[in-house]
Amino acid sequence: MNATALDTSGCRFVVLSGGVGGAKLVQGLSLCRSPGELMVVGNVGDDFEHWGMHISPDLDTLMYTLAGVANPETGWGRTGETWRVLEGVSALGGESWFRLGDQDLAVHIERTARLKSGAPLSTVTNDLCRAMGVSIPILPVTDDRLRTIVDTSDGPLDFQTYFVHQHCEPVVTGLRFEGASAAVLFPSISTALADPDLTAVILCPSNPFLSLDPILATADLRCRLQDCVAPVVAVSPMVGSKAFKGPTAKIMQELGHAPTTLSVARYYADLLDGYVIDTADAEISDEIEEFGLRVKTAGTLMDSLEQKQRLAADVVAFSETIGRERSRSQMGDLNV
Amino acid sequence: MNATALDTSGCRFVVLSGGVGGAKLVQGLSLCRSPGELMVVGNVGDDFEHWGMHISPDLDTLMYTLAGVANPETGWGRTGETWRVLEGVSALGGESWFRLGDQDLAVHIERTARLKSGAPLSTVTNDLCRAMGVSIPILPVTDDRLRTIVDTSDGPLDFQTYFVHQHCEPVVTGLRFEGASAAVLFPSISTALADPDLTAVILCPSNPFLSLDPILATADLRCRLQDCVAPVVAVSPMVGSKAFKGPTAKIMQELGHAPTTLSVARYYADLLDGYVIDTADAEISDEIEEFGLRVKTAGTLMDSLEQKQRLAADVVAFSETIGRERSRSQMGDLNV
Repeated sequence: MNATALDTSGCRFVVLSGGVGGAKLVQGLSLCRSPGELMVVGNVGDDFEHWGMHISPDLDTLMYTLAGVANPETGWGRTGETWRVLEGVSALGGESWFRLGDQDLAVHIERTARLKSGAPLSTVTNDLCRAMGVSIPILPVTDDRLRTIVDTSDGPLDFQTYFVHQHCEPVVTGLRFEGASAAVLFPSISTALADPDLTAVILCPSNPFLSLDPILATADLRCRLQDCVAPVVAVSPMVGSKAFKGPTAKIMQELGHAPTTLSVARYYADLLDGYVIDTADAEISDEIEEFGLRVKTAGTLMDSLEQKQRLAADVVAFSETIGRERSRSQMGDLNV
Repeated sequence: MNATALDTSGCRFVVLSGGVGGAKLVQGLSLCRSPGELMVVGNVGDDFEHWGMHISPDLDTLMYTLAGVANPETGWGRTGETWRVLEGVSALGGESWFRLGDQDLAVHIERTARLKSGAPLSTVTNDLCRAMGVSIPILPVTDDRLRTIVDTSDGPLDFQTYFVHQHCEPVVTGLRFEGASAAVLFPSISTALADPDLTAVILCPSNPFLSLDPILATADLRCRLQDCVAPVVAVSPMVGSKAFKGPTAKIMQELGHAPTTLSVARYYADLLDGYVIDTADAEISDEIEEFGLRVKTAGTLMDSLEQKQRLAADVVAFSETIGRERSRSQMGDLNV
């Protein structure tokens, strides 16, 4: 079965997103813009097989968030979830380290059945989204197999084994995105990126190394974005602090990056036109601008729907401003 | 992985069983005899793959019944069951014709995971039984793939599609047990059948054509039973009526058998030494004895635990009587 083509003619924003943090901004954007103006490109490097099922954690977090059924307390899974199957499997001595709720499991069962019948992941995701009332297109960056492999001092681990089963404890020596270079970018993404009417590409506040890099590694998307006519704008995944904490900080340090917002800005510098940081981080604006980026400060906390919507509106306005300036400068070039 | 060998040295009764009706008698036997004296041989012709999982309906009904968690109202599935996953799959437009409850699903998930890791079905079944506190060995008749195919006027259908999805509506033109002749009988069954201390082989009151025939077709078990030293005794699956009703009657008629208890006795005549019929059917005892079988009338209704236990005790006593008579007659032969 071939992937279902998507009508991208009205698309104005291509939004790259991982799971939780990214989904919050996507939800904010959904409150500012009509569904046809948005195209969400999701990470599939975290996808894995468990209990014989194909699980797409980041696509699901996006879908659940937009469907209004995401569990805001855990950051994964669904509201009002029950755990009957997991309890049953656990009682039988089965694998219970990956916490699959009953409603969540239904999605994995249905996804797996459709994939087995030959439908590509993009079509399956689209069908599941429609069944859940989500009208914004959520696209896996590719229909091909892509897996984030975490190279550690204990040897290579697949992402979920490292992240969930081993609680990020092994020392990371590298990250690989298996299948990324050979993967075909989902065609509608290429079409949207080439559209002269595209307003912006937005990188959500997701983990740069674990969530956005697998997307950017797919079929050289990172290079394509460098050549993109529309401005590329990212939102800092960090708020009000100079150094990351927890597993992100640990991973960054193990990979040789200082665990700071500035460090992330530097990592993306060749790719971005603009960077949105939290108002609390205003003091590092100048340093980031030295990388050749426009910087905007905004409230990047997204605990409430209102905060999500406001940040989304700020990001949209910021990218429109960069776009207008760029047009003006190109007009200027023409006038010379 | 090889199948786990079973210590059959104490086995006195090899009990062939399908699902519901058979499980009731097995439960009765479990109340009369110690677990080590019983070996339950289950039908796997009904096994199938659904939602990507390996489902063994008859083995599960036996396991749930002996674990005391079978749902007595439906005749399948578990007590206190919930349907969260099924509701979820159904809401997504997925297949919901086979009603898998959440606790039931946990068993299928765990079975499938263990099978995928290379364990044979016998070992997996044994492990699941132990986890559920069932100490009576339940053995799939074979670890090899065996599938009941229902040939119908609409073409061949796998058993569950015919039985559950199509509600036995297509006209049956034949039954085939795919893989049966090439399948290897689970070795402990052969060992138990060859044991001179075996008291009896008991055929439970299961559907002869759909539940017992796939067992008997496996590696020519039917022929082996004809040669078995211990008496072979069956319990009529029918109570207090001359003609079957419902799908069993329909199938029997379509296969050219009169849908009566007498007809089943005739079908098994070359295999059995004794046949237990309900007291209400006493009037056909003579006719059955004309097939060369010993007949015992008993209360074959098994609604209560007491009824199950009483019938089991009757069956045991009946087979012991036949065994003693046979010994005496053999002693007589020697004396001649």
